Amino acid sequence: MLKKNYKMVIAYDGTRYKGWQSQKSTDVTIQGKLNHIFSELEGEKVEVQGSGRTDAGVHAAGQVANVRLSVEKPVNEIKDYVNFYLPEDIGIMEMKEASEAFHARLSAVKKTYCYRIFNSGEPNVFERKWMYTVVEPLDVEAMQEAAVYLEGSHDFAAFCRRRSKKKSTIRTIYRLEIVRKGKEVDIIITGSGFLHNMVRILAGTLTEVGLGERKPLEVRQILESGIRENAGITLPAKGLILQCVEYET
Amino acid sequence: MLKKNYKMVIAYDGTRYKGWQSQKSTDVTIQGKLNHIFSELEGEKVEVQGSGRTDAGVHAAGQVANVRLSVEKPVNEIKDYVNFYLPEDIGIMEMKEASEAFHARLSAVKKTYCYRIFNSGEPNVFERKWMYTVVEPLDVEAMQEAAVYLEGSHDFAAFCRRRSKKKSTIRTIYRLEIVRKGKEVDIIITGSGFLHNMVRILAGTLTEVGLGERKPLEVRQILESGIRENAGITLPAKGLILQCVEYET
Repeated sequence: MLKKNYKMVIAYDGTRYKGWQSQKSTDVTIQGKLNHIFSELEGEKVEVQGSGRTDAGVHAAGQVANVRLSVEKPVNEIKDYVNFYLPEDIGIMEMKEASEAFHARLSAVKKTYCYRIFNSGEPNVFERKWMYTVVEPLDVEAMQEAAVYLEGSHDFAAFCRRRSKKKSTIRTIYRLEIVRKGKEVDIIITGSGFLHNMVRILAGTLTEVGLGERKPLEVRQILESGIRENAGITLPAKGLILQCVEYET
Repeated sequence: MLKKNYKMVIAYDGTRYKGWQSQKSTDVTIQGKLNHIFSELEGEKVEVQGSGRTDAGVHAAGQVANVRLSVEKPVNEIKDYVNFYLPEDIGIMEMKEASEAFHARLSAVKKTYCYRIFNSGEPNVFERKWMYTVVEPLDVEAMQEAAVYLEGSHDFAAFCRRRSKKKSTIRTIYRLEIVRKGKEVDIIITGSGFLHNMVRILAGTLTEVGLGERKPLEVRQILESGIRENAGITLPAKGLILQCVEYET
């Protein structure tokens, strides 16, 4: 039967999941939950293809995925069916038919992540699960100064966990903004794609700059060194959210 | 030893608690958690006095309480000590020494509650624990029209669970606003005090008006009848948040 290709925008609170990518041993992944429900609907095993993995505990407001289905239902009914069976910490925000060629991972051209820091010694009762707390005041201007060295195309080997020697560690950051909104400091990064833990290591390094533990210029030296140990700590997953994935229209 | 009286502003995510008021059989109350930590600090049993109870599952951004302590520490150290031992879903936002006469419940003159409705058929992944979902579009103007009949001093017997025949059910609502912010509709109520479940029954009745199931004028008739069965449903606790408690200065 002819299968149609559907594009979806998916939001999830990653707190209780072992990340996006389905694992044989566990159902506690976002892709696993989606695969299961779409397969029930389709009557045979189907696989949802995401724009990329997100690690355990990482959230998404705008993960994108595609799935091929032969089931004959209007797209809004499919969306409502799947949302009905999904747990309430995962939701399909948008769903529409896409071209046959659309592939959520291969067609993606830009991704934007946000790392959210609660920069206060006060309790953060309502957003504690989606922000990382830094008590000492962050110097946002110093962070912005450091961010300039990271924009553009660079070898980000120093900002990457477990690098594969075979694969390129060159990536392009189109925009890296640090924005203070009251007690919140957001690190917003748009890039062509990201290496493993890259955003969390960049955020950790920029936070050390914001705390005065490093000078902004050091970030350029770290980048040039290509040595992971020279960069800052990997900040916890809970502050990270995949905001959106962009495609050529 | 001379005891000082302290005033606190407390925030809590009420999701996993059996309400504010401590119970002998369980520690899973907000007051119970606070009593326990303050008693450890003081070295003897002390009791935190709240401005009033909140029911199981109800949240607070600005609950107010007072406690009398003889421990000799600066107030900020006391606050930090208690916040350190509190679970992360309860936090003391402010704490300061108050006059001997200050009593969080008896001195309160106004309270403001907000009932938050997510008015959309979309999933509400990140705020699902603090909002009640109504899928059909609410007619906010009709709700505002109905709200006018509720403002002022009235006998709210019809909007009250388990009324005690002995106690007065007359209360004053100083302000009742319905505000749409995108997909969110907030019912914000400031009053002299509230009967048991009063805000949740008012919110349920106003929601029925917003859905066109009742005419705005009916709200006046319900009020005049004094009969609980004439009013709308009690909306779930999770949408309700105690915003602030005001005192004469």
